[in-house]
Amino acid sequence: GLWHDGAPTPTIFERMSAAAAEHEAVNLGQGFPDRDGPEQLLRLAADAVLRGPNQYAPGAGLPALRQAVAMHRTEHWGVTEDPESEVLVTTGTTEAITATVLAFVEPGEEVITVEPFYDAHAAAIALAGAQHVRVPVSAPDFQPDPERLLAAVTDRTRLLVLNTPHNPTGAVYPPALLRRLIEGCAERGVLVLSDEVYDHLVYDGEHVTLRALDPTGETVLTASSAGKSFAVTGWKVGWLTGAARHVAAVRAVKQYLTFSSGPAYQQAVAAYLPQSGPFLAEQRARLRRQRDLLVDGLRAVGLEPTVPQAGYFVTVDLTPWGTTDAMAAALEWTRSAGVTPVPVSALCASSSETLSSWLRLAFCKEPDVLAEGMQRLARHA
Amino acid sequence: GLWHDGAPTPTIFERMSAAAAEHEAVNLGQGFPDRDGPEQLLRLAADAVLRGPNQYAPGAGLPALRQAVAMHRTEHWGVTEDPESEVLVTTGTTEAITATVLAFVEPGEEVITVEPFYDAHAAAIALAGAQHVRVPVSAPDFQPDPERLLAAVTDRTRLLVLNTPHNPTGAVYPPALLRRLIEGCAERGVLVLSDEVYDHLVYDGEHVTLRALDPTGETVLTASSAGKSFAVTGWKVGWLTGAARHVAAVRAVKQYLTFSSGPAYQQAVAAYLPQSGPFLAEQRARLRRQRDLLVDGLRAVGLEPTVPQAGYFVTVDLTPWGTTDAMAAALEWTRSAGVTPVPVSALCASSSETLSSWLRLAFCKEPDVLAEGMQRLARHA
Ligand SMILES: CSCCC(=O)C(=O)O
Ligand SMILES: CSCCC(=O)C(=O)O
Repeated sequence: GLWHDGAPTPTIFERMSAAAAEHEAVNLGQGFPDRDGPEQLLRLAADAVLRGPNQYAPGAGLPALRQAVAMHRTEHWGVTEDPESEVLVTTGTTEAITATVLAFVEPGEEVITVEPFYDAHAAAIALAGAQHVRVPVSAPDFQPDPERLLAAVTDRTRLLVLNTPHNPTGAVYPPALLRRLIEGCAERGVLVLSDEVYDHLVYDGEHVTLRALDPTGETVLTASSAGKSFAVTGWKVGWLTGAARHVAAVRAVKQYLTFSSGPAYQQAVAAYLPQSGPFLAEQRARLRRQRDLLVDGLRAVGLEPTVPQAGYFVTVDLTPWGTTDAMAAALEWTRSAGVTPVPVSALCASSSETLSSWLRLAFCKEPDVLAEGMQRLARHA
Repeated sequence: GLWHDGAPTPTIFERMSAAAAEHEAVNLGQGFPDRDGPEQLLRLAADAVLRGPNQYAPGAGLPALRQAVAMHRTEHWGVTEDPESEVLVTTGTTEAITATVLAFVEPGEEVITVEPFYDAHAAAIALAGAQHVRVPVSAPDFQPDPERLLAAVTDRTRLLVLNTPHNPTGAVYPPALLRRLIEGCAERGVLVLSDEVYDHLVYDGEHVTLRALDPTGETVLTASSAGKSFAVTGWKVGWLTGAARHVAAVRAVKQYLTFSSGPAYQQAVAAYLPQSGPFLAEQRARLRRQRDLLVDGLRAVGLEPTVPQAGYFVTVDLTPWGTTDAMAAALEWTRSAGVTPVPVSALCASSSETLSSWLRLAFCKEPDVLAEGMQRLARHA
């Protein structure tokens, strides 16, 4: 893995995007759609730029957005949260994660995630000077074993960072597993931070927000954002929800990471969320078709990709092709096949061997882009 | 001061804004203009929302913006910096400051600033687990003594954070003083981070970017932003410049605070910077008139405000009115006079007595707003 001496610069996603650009490869690496989100949402943001707000949004976010997020979460996930005290707007989920880790974790304490993990989770833990404790998940379903996660808790464990739907594996964690984890963490005085940015992009199964399963509301913080759901990944309108005292602690850090950002984007998302149902259904159907296209293309070249339940990505083991080094393979695919994936090994500790032969490919790209990528791969195979 | 138990939530600026709203007071607290920046800039951003980019900007910022920032800094401040490796786009200067402190400062190390200080400087130091060493400046000119600053350096000192033009005092530091500080810090292996967000808003004297005075280019990092200069404080388009290896270190942290943000704002600022000369001249003239309005208004009620060389703020000592507690006075003005200032004491350590009777008032507000504020104060006096 690339994660050895702290934070790599640039991130694995940017490195692979740069490699793709250099070799004019089809970029199935970094997870961003090549079709921007709904026209209506873009118009709302353009209007907000012209009419304002253009001055500082409040540190906690525009009140209208906090309200809209709370209503959206009630409508879709059945939780009731106070927009005033239990919702914090952030500069994407990245800021929510980093601010949460910095708010609760002291140097030398421990934070648990599954492995593979999203790079920003590991980076936030490193920034806090904490120990990253990893519990591997494996193919075909990449479901964590809750007892193994709980067994990793020590008296220095402060936080369990979960990610459901999971990047890079596309796994969706079922309610029974999540309930057990929340209960176990509550008993042990461990907080749970749940990164749910793919909440609306579930193709098989159903997303459950962790906060809905938290009996006291005092164990779980959840983060999500508009970027993935509405195909505006650059906007970086994210939100964190949790118990008022937890949200206040994160806000105290967050207000000194960026203070606040993107007032026009915030206003547009606030206005769009209540009317976003039809687009979300369409987008889910579109991405499911794209997932299937990519899965079929990989099968056509003799690979056996996982069929992810959710998200933007398919993962695939290269062992059938005699490959054991995914990083080398990712560069080789880019150079020789003209298709760029991300090595899953870069989302594991460098010492980890489990997924060293796995690649991740993004299907949040237009069907013709995916088809071109799969044709190139077929010629290369 | 409010800075006792770590980061206050919300910030002093937001608390005072909330108090102003509650009492329908004229808000001369938080530093944001009540007239948005140039129409042309807003149109550029609205277009960028409609046509893209709406997906992730690169972690280092849009290449066009890095290029425009480098050219802008050459044009205005005479420095030559490589847009590829020496310019990093940030989510406002806040993110530049916090990422820099987190990148270079370990827990237990020391960071020096003058006192009073901008709240985010102190917060970033606290977030890094470092010691904040403060060297007071005083009226009437609030110039720091370079020998006192250098005498505060110990073998644990990692960073000197300067702010010129200075918030809250409006002081502009002259080149000779800055040269001495840079030379002294270079000798002692201390980095200098210079927060220059008011660079274009100088009414008396001249701004010099610290990087222009750095003989090796290896001692100074400078940060600035579009927010104050172009009256779009909410956009949070900032930049950090410095030696390539320093910028890379900050980027490694910054990419995990927010990754990147505001692609439409970034693109608009990139397009507008080269044509921004006339607006900047106009804006400077407008703000100078507003400064004079506020100074005259305060004199009319028998106070003796400083006449700031630069920035958004006037400071004033309440001792002539027999007041020694600026925090109490700020709330009393808000409630009884209907005018909201910020206590300078909130930008000092709680143990500090120096500026405990000083208020800060913003003049980045429309002339009629300033006039109304001063009328209210006259009725109250
Ligand atoms: C912030 S760049 C990475 C985008 C992403 O979420 C991914 O590719 O996994
Ligand atoms: C980020 S809110 C504070 C605005 C400001 O720069 C000030 O009032 O000093």
